[in-house]
Amino acid sequence: MRHFSKSIGTVNNRLGREVGKWLNSTSTVTKGAATNQLKGVWPIVATPFHAQNEKLDYKSFEKILSFFCNEIKVSGVTVMGVLGESNRLLDKERTELTKIAVSVCQETKTPVCVGTSHSGTYATIERSLEAFDLGCYAVMISPSKETFTNQKVVYNYFKEICKHLSAERQQWIVLQDHPQSTEVKMELETIESMVQDFLPIACIKLESLPSPTKIKQLQQFITKNVKREVTLLGGLGALYGYFDLQSLSDGFMTGFAFPEILQAMYLNARNSDKCFQIYAKYLPLIVFEQQPGVSLRKHLYHIRGLLADTHVRHPGPSSSVHMCNCCATPSAVYWS
Amino acid sequence: MRHFSKSIGTVNNRLGREVGKWLNSTSTVTKGAATNQLKGVWPIVATPFHAQNEKLDYKSFEKILSFFCNEIKVSGVTVMGVLGESNRLLDKERTELTKIAVSVCQETKTPVCVGTSHSGTYATIERSLEAFDLGCYAVMISPSKETFTNQKVVYNYFKEICKHLSAERQQWIVLQDHPQSTEVKMELETIESMVQDFLPIACIKLESLPSPTKIKQLQQFITKNVKREVTLLGGLGALYGYFDLQSLSDGFMTGFAFPEILQAMYLNARNSDKCFQIYAKYLPLIVFEQQPGVSLRKHLYHIRGLLADTHVRHPGPSSSVHMCNCCATPSAVYWS
Amino acid sequence: MRHFSKSIGTVNNRLGREVGKWLNSTSTVTKGAATNQLKGVWPIVATPFHAQNEKLDYKSFEKILSFFCNEIKVSGVTVMGVLGESNRLLDKERTELTKIAVSVCQETKTPVCVGTSHSGTYATIERSLEAFDLGCYAVMISPSKETFTNQKVVYNYFKEICKHLSAERQQWIVLQDHPQSTEVKMELETIESMVQDFLPIACIKLESLPSPTKIKQLQQFITKNVKREVTLLGGLGALYGYFDLQSLSDGFMTGFAFPEILQAMYLNARNSDKCFQIYAKYLPLIVFEQQPGVSLRKHLYHIRGLLADTHVRHPGPSSSVHMCNCCATPSAVYWS
Amino acid sequence: MRHFSKSIGTVNNRLGREVGKWLNSTSTVTKGAATNQLKGVWPIVATPFHAQNEKLDYKSFEKILSFFCNEIKVSGVTVMGVLGESNRLLDKERTELTKIAVSVCQETKTPVCVGTSHSGTYATIERSLEAFDLGCYAVMISPSKETFTNQKVVYNYFKEICKHLSAERQQWIVLQDHPQSTEVKMELETIESMVQDFLPIACIKLESLPSPTKIKQLQQFITKNVKREVTLLGGLGALYGYFDLQSLSDGFMTGFAFPEILQAMYLNARNSDKCFQIYAKYLPLIVFEQQPGVSLRKHLYHIRGLLADTHVRHPGPSSSVHMCNCCATPSAVYWS
Repeated sequence: MRHFSKSIGTVNNRLGREVGKWLNSTSTVTKGAATNQLKGVWPIVATPFHAQNEKLDYKSFEKILSFFCNEIKVSGVTVMGVLGESNRLLDKERTELTKIAVSVCQETKTPVCVGTSHSGTYATIERSLEAFDLGCYAVMISPSKETFTNQKVVYNYFKEICKHLSAERQQWIVLQDHPQSTEVKMELETIESMVQDFLPIACIKLESLPSPTKIKQLQQFITKNVKREVTLLGGLGALYGYFDLQSLSDGFMTGFAFPEILQAMYLNARNSDKCFQIYAKYLPLIVFEQQPGVSLRKHLYHIRGLLADTHVRHPGPSSSVHMCNCCATPSAVYWS
Repeated sequence: MRHFSKSIGTVNNRLGREVGKWLNSTSTVTKGAATNQLKGVWPIVATPFHAQNEKLDYKSFEKILSFFCNEIKVSGVTVMGVLGESNRLLDKERTELTKIAVSVCQETKTPVCVGTSHSGTYATIERSLEAFDLGCYAVMISPSKETFTNQKVVYNYFKEICKHLSAERQQWIVLQDHPQSTEVKMELETIESMVQDFLPIACIKLESLPSPTKIKQLQQFITKNVKREVTLLGGLGALYGYFDLQSLSDGFMTGFAFPEILQAMYLNARNSDKCFQIYAKYLPLIVFEQQPGVSLRKHLYHIRGLLADTHVRHPGPSSSVHMCNCCATPSAVYWS
Repeated sequence: MRHFSKSIGTVNNRLGREVGKWLNSTSTVTKGAATNQLKGVWPIVATPFHAQNEKLDYKSFEKILSFFCNEIKVSGVTVMGVLGESNRLLDKERTELTKIAVSVCQETKTPVCVGTSHSGTYATIERSLEAFDLGCYAVMISPSKETFTNQKVVYNYFKEICKHLSAERQQWIVLQDHPQSTEVKMELETIESMVQDFLPIACIKLESLPSPTKIKQLQQFITKNVKREVTLLGGLGALYGYFDLQSLSDGFMTGFAFPEILQAMYLNARNSDKCFQIYAKYLPLIVFEQQPGVSLRKHLYHIRGLLADTHVRHPGPSSSVHMCNCCATPSAVYWS
Repeated sequence: MRHFSKSIGTVNNRLGREVGKWLNSTSTVTKGAATNQLKGVWPIVATPFHAQNEKLDYKSFEKILSFFCNEIKVSGVTVMGVLGESNRLLDKERTELTKIAVSVCQETKTPVCVGTSHSGTYATIERSLEAFDLGCYAVMISPSKETFTNQKVVYNYFKEICKHLSAERQQWIVLQDHPQSTEVKMELETIESMVQDFLPIACIKLESLPSPTKIKQLQQFITKNVKREVTLLGGLGALYGYFDLQSLSDGFMTGFAFPEILQAMYLNARNSDKCFQIYAKYLPLIVFEQQPGVSLRKHLYHIRGLLADTHVRHPGPSSSVHMCNCCATPSAVYWS
């Protein structure tokens, strides 16, 4: 990966300048307010490991978070999502990472969301309570495969969780609908019932296809039936980002390695021509980057100078040399 | 769907003119030659149905084929693939559709490929022999889920088939690797062994991710170890089209509703800047159009004036009004 | 398989005598009546193939049917179920097999049920109409995987089918709930709604676990809410046969190679001690025989002298020598 | 559950006396020896929870372990298997349960095996090292779904683990082949390679169908190619217990709630008539009890007086009233 190191500085400068043209201001998102902060751009943060022993690389983790909070000024950060290799972590590592995230983000008052899904409901609750104790703003929860006996079991999974979390104590849930990773298909009616009945649910991260259609439907349902503010965030590496925004999503919570591009799209969401222009310009990068697996994104983080080591924890596959070489094109086009 | 009808003529003209700039000549692909014709652009043809009774709409089927052969001058056509709703057809309907395809394509000597996969090997063979009897150039076969006990069973499935087909009689097979629809993961080594051992296999349609990496590896293997010409075609709606071509694929066999764009990319494959330019320009359309399900593509066929009725056979879902409305953007950008 | 041939005669005699003790009479089931005949014991018939060319072995097919109708006097027969390798047949073969089944069963007025499930609704309907045209009593239909987007799609699949079938014309449906083969989980509420709303549904073949509990619940629902007679048949090779019967199932529709044992259990269903005694005595055979795959049952059919050739159509696995040798125990215990 | 409590004492006495007839002696298994102890009967222990708050019920856990060690004198115990609801536990709960198991079993020198599978290899290793540090005899590991890209990944998963465990330090692995719970199909060749190459693997728990055939083949391979003692244990609730033993398995590691019956079968394994007699007698109980889900077994543990509370952690389903009532039959037959 040595051959990329030279270009790191340039990369951020060039891309930064370019994207900067679309960013009128970085202060548009007011933080720390009482209102629902789950909107704008919340990057999902990769979890860095040392290649030689697979242990957590805390230093890189801090670096990424600091870059997101201080340089890009994201709306919030989400740690231990799918991209964060949450399924390869021990509980004690989760605690460590949560503490670091909260600590780094404190200075900029950037809210932190933590993925706390566990195949057991009790463990999901325990993890979530710990996250809030440590100062997190929200937890991201997706149903486990075992809940997929029928829609009622999915509903009851969140019901059980919401008995132990409280909207009054501001213990917010991001309900993640991502059948690709969970193998659980939630019907729109199920999501709607849950949004109506469970007050801690403050946001839906909608990643089931076709996402634009579902976002539209859900947005209409919420407007009509839900009194409190519940936001809808797009995911899927922003593959359908433009269409999601035009369907009135409230932003992005996804692992795309260049959140500033998503910020540009978000800030121009209501200017559909400009939004499309940005989307179209960077779509080859978005498409290339959203290929399955965590390794490619870690590679791009590395190119950006944010990650010392692109190692993915075993048995996750590392990116092939060829796939890395394919970056030559985006490199040439976007940051050479 | 009425509101789209007005723009049909314009669509093809505008898009045609634009894409025409990149197409130096439509006569580059010589047909009827003795060499492997499984290269260039082979669109997968949708199967049209009458909405009121779900019966086959032969007239629209002929229209599409005629447009592809005479107007766009594609390298070949593939009928009864996944987009062709092959899993919702009776055997006698298959026979009818094959006859029509061969008949329409005869005039332009456009070769026809027919999907003949069946969960039973015997039936796959019978279907394939019938296809060749009726004048097809190739059959497209993917392994069935039951073969997925282990890689040897997959290998033996094709071995069994290849006992009954013959390279000497030019009974060619397109081996389709599309785990999304088949749920069968073929290891690269398995594909390599089959390409080496089974002479009727003349082409691999590679649609397992990451496709660019696999195309590269397979192309290297073939160059080194396989004497006869075996081609590699990309699929997946051309989502990774540029990267597939740069990894030395031999073209496309996919259901993307605008094959002329793929032709432009293919003809400029070795001019990587120009190829990327075309890819980037149309990528929002490619991304939007490759969303799961057949309905959206039928909708776009309809916009192009090729399909009277966008009906998808039950239980396949029809495209939602919202999804159709999302076409407003591509419309505005590409053919308004 | 030679070494088994000697014992064939003995087998049937010995087993027949033994089971005969429990069968008070073979005339208990009145056939041809106007009432719902989908009760008692309906064996699922294996489809015989010639090993050398995988073609249908019509002669063995007739032999099995004749044995079931004339010797065992089963309540009905079901052809082209999972055991009938329905997923490895061409449409024209299906027609042939249906004709033969109806013809052989005519003499004894034994009703015939045909599996007609197809991944497309239109094809399921066409197949079903053909079955009734050819003289079948019922068709067995299970939902296809594509319907498993949500329970409404499953419901609509049967709704669509029932638009084209008619209770007045006595076109009966056996709704099969067998998630192991279909990968579709039907909620009990969905089944209940369908039983209430769709008059052609005359029987549920309940094979989702825990089957005794579900049979009980469904039986209670039907008694309370459904005016017409809808029966519940157990399957799963009768693994839970005793418990299913005690939960008030109306009999068996399954591929267990010794239907006379199931007849004995069925006739003593309300004498729970005797029923248990029969179940317990033959359970090792039931357990051994219900191992996944069709091959073992074909092997047992062969031992019974009903099948010339145990061949399973490719890619279905044939039974191993070891598995066949394991039959030594049941042989020694039950029919040596 | 009250109505069962009266019969508890009787149950154990009656069943105990009966099974006792087949048990010549309880001292046949010498413990603490240097040889491979992974043979005989190793029950998988249920994890007890308090119904009111889902917390661990340590007291019941100790009671079960004590009963197994002191009363039944099992060969070993396995905690945190599938029956142990390992997928619903926090890491710190795992540590607690391991400590208790080792402590209770110490007196009788009963070896303890702990399930340590995790979707990440690093976490599996950490968990395993902790288990050995706490005094366990072996760890049970199954491959995770992510390893199922191909057989090489499965192989490498265990290779990676075996780099950190050591046969010299007697850190033994029980390799679990249970595709029903893992969705990973291991080819026999893969298992064979791993047994040959990785010295810590001391036992295969073979639960993929057809298990008798596979046990036979694997036993032959080991006898011929593997110098050290590697044992084969049957599972699947002993459903195929007799056939597994006749195929030369070395005993059972499974959650069947009456391990003394398995002990009786195991001790008479080489007297096939007697072994079959025991198997046949208790097969209705085995069949009934191996229905999917943990709840039924917890119910039977409760009947035996071993478990205060049959609660299954959410979202695991609790056993229905009907299912419990079905126990009436086994009750009447075996312990009334």
